Amino acid sequence: MAGVKTLTVELGERSYPIHIGRGLLERADLYRPRIRGRQVLVVTNTTVAPLYLERVRNALEAEHEVESLVLPDGEEYKNLETLETIFDALLELRFNRRCTLAALGGGVVGDITGFAAACFLRGVDFVQLPTTLLAQVDSSVGGKTGINHPRGKNMIGAFHQPRLVIADTDTLNTLDDRQLAAGVAEVIKYGLIRDAAFFEWLEDHVEALLARDPEALAHAIEVSCRTKAAIVAEDEREAGTRALLNLGHTFGHAIETGMGYGNWLHGEAVAAGMVLAARLSERLGWLDAAGVERIVRLLQRARLPTEPPGEMGVEDFLSLMAVDKKVVDSGLRLVLLRRIGEAVLTQDFTPEQLTATLSEALAAA
Amino acid sequence: MAGVKTLTVELGERSYPIHIGRGLLERADLYRPRIRGRQVLVVTNTTVAPLYLERVRNALEAEHEVESLVLPDGEEYKNLETLETIFDALLELRFNRRCTLAALGGGVVGDITGFAAACFLRGVDFVQLPTTLLAQVDSSVGGKTGINHPRGKNMIGAFHQPRLVIADTDTLNTLDDRQLAAGVAEVIKYGLIRDAAFFEWLEDHVEALLARDPEALAHAIEVSCRTKAAIVAEDEREAGTRALLNLGHTFGHAIETGMGYGNWLHGEAVAAGMVLAARLSERLGWLDAAGVERIVRLLQRARLPTEPPGEMGVEDFLSLMAVDKKVVDSGLRLVLLRRIGEAVLTQDFTPEQLTATLSEALAAA
Repeated sequence: MAGVKTLTVELGERSYPIHIGRGLLERADLYRPRIRGRQVLVVTNTTVAPLYLERVRNALEAEHEVESLVLPDGEEYKNLETLETIFDALLELRFNRRCTLAALGGGVVGDITGFAAACFLRGVDFVQLPTTLLAQVDSSVGGKTGINHPRGKNMIGAFHQPRLVIADTDTLNTLDDRQLAAGVAEVIKYGLIRDAAFFEWLEDHVEALLARDPEALAHAIEVSCRTKAAIVAEDEREAGTRALLNLGHTFGHAIETGMGYGNWLHGEAVAAGMVLAARLSERLGWLDAAGVERIVRLLQRARLPTEPPGEMGVEDFLSLMAVDKKVVDSGLRLVLLRRIGEAVLTQDFTPEQLTATLSEALAAA
Repeated sequence: MAGVKTLTVELGERSYPIHIGRGLLERADLYRPRIRGRQVLVVTNTTVAPLYLERVRNALEAEHEVESLVLPDGEEYKNLETLETIFDALLELRFNRRCTLAALGGGVVGDITGFAAACFLRGVDFVQLPTTLLAQVDSSVGGKTGINHPRGKNMIGAFHQPRLVIADTDTLNTLDDRQLAAGVAEVIKYGLIRDAAFFEWLEDHVEALLARDPEALAHAIEVSCRTKAAIVAEDEREAGTRALLNLGHTFGHAIETGMGYGNWLHGEAVAAGMVLAARLSERLGWLDAAGVERIVRLLQRARLPTEPPGEMGVEDFLSLMAVDKKVVDSGLRLVLLRRIGEAVLTQDFTPEQLTATLSEALAAA
């Protein structure tokens, strides 16, 4: 279709398209083939609603009974209480099994709306309309949904694939610089875990991304979604390969939880977490010092934090990381780097090596 | 194995055994092959804990780190708030992805524990240890989990299959008469929907069931589980055949919600609901008057209600039924009876026929 790049996440009968391009939110032809019933609830937040809700409603109203629900904006609302307001709305509106939920917003809106869709009447359809770079390259693709618990991020959730993802790059024009940079952190992650050439491309184009160059953004989103789609198709429920997508996330979740949800953006915490992962990898003799330096330098150019918050201590990290989902009976496993472009999920580090990495980084912070 | 009848629910790699017999809760050999990790949380309630929790702990403690959580007893606690207490406990205990939740109790404990297992860390293992007849023949088999919402029963939930079901018939000795009868309602349902010979067997043995004759109970549980297992294997996610298991349930859920959770037991509401379904079927010229009479008579002998609550009106029913999950865009569908032993999911009735059936029954109540 004109002006649209379309990828497919290959999951058998649950396969779905990701459309990437400009002005796509108003394209009724993109929604039509993927929404099955009559009732649609658009879930969004107070920041995004004034900007894009009307466009989405207009595109859907010809064929659907469209309702909307506007949530407060912020990671601190990604909880059971907000989830309940979605259920209340769905039942108040008497939505049935053939309804569709449309998540219009960033990762928080996508995760909580997807989880509501997973649970309402034991599972209804949903579509992702991500309006942040982070959501376009990461959270809206792959079917992980959920909410936070005071003791940890995304502790409660479900695997529930969307029927459709529309990444309208025009929405990035209204994104603030800090949110844009947080999205770039996840883009850099794809280069680090299995695409050294893309990492080099990013070294050449990071300023273009921050300047919102449309072609650079579309390319970065396409490569990121393609990588994520391939990994999800290989390993939908994170038995193996998919865990590599968590590079920087175990450290990052500890930062997000330790600092209070919403104080560090997810992408910022992941950026600092990727540096910790890189430094631990270096300590194991895997990644060399030059590699660590390239990673730190690229993240700095993207205006992302490269040190953990000085307010936290080693014990805070160890305690928060132990509750992370990646911990299994056998002990803590982390995604570390053999080199730029090659990540591995591993337990091949000692508690002392982990502690030393954390305490050095915290001393420098 | 000695003294155990074992059925298998055939769901490919998610297949699981149902063991039926006396004294099974203390049999460590039944748990061992089906619990994968080290951590086990036994979720039970204040009524069941003093009776059976110790036996289950003893059977598990040799190989597992066993914790327990005792919930308040009653359908009115099958809600988001109680669910949260399970998540709180799991996170407080730092349970990881390889943990198992064990639901020890009736349908409420099984449904909410199963739903907690479906959502915790996006899905962990669980086992069902049903201690009521209703749970042994129905709710513990088939993977439907969930909680209620003030506007409707089981509105929020997930399909999540247990790894193991142990139906220890000794637990029925401590069940009160009313709960036992409520379980018999679901047993009768299996005869009605597709086993006329079993319905006849029940006409000969209903008093033996109420008298807790162990052989009669074991036979009724086995036939019921076998029927349910076969239907679930055919249609795990209720796209077709499985809907037949809802005979009496759309009416029944309206009664449960309308009267306030816990005032009518689920099986009691289903009994009155099956009579309404039978009367509507008669009005359509499907089931004959003698068939309706046999159904009413058998339910009465089981000491179950056969009329809807006089406190409710036709409008209450219609409004509550419209929010039930079985309603899709195209209108209300109900499970009705062609004859005893043959149920169909149908829209082949007019609103007037439904209203007339309800108003006659309510006038007689």
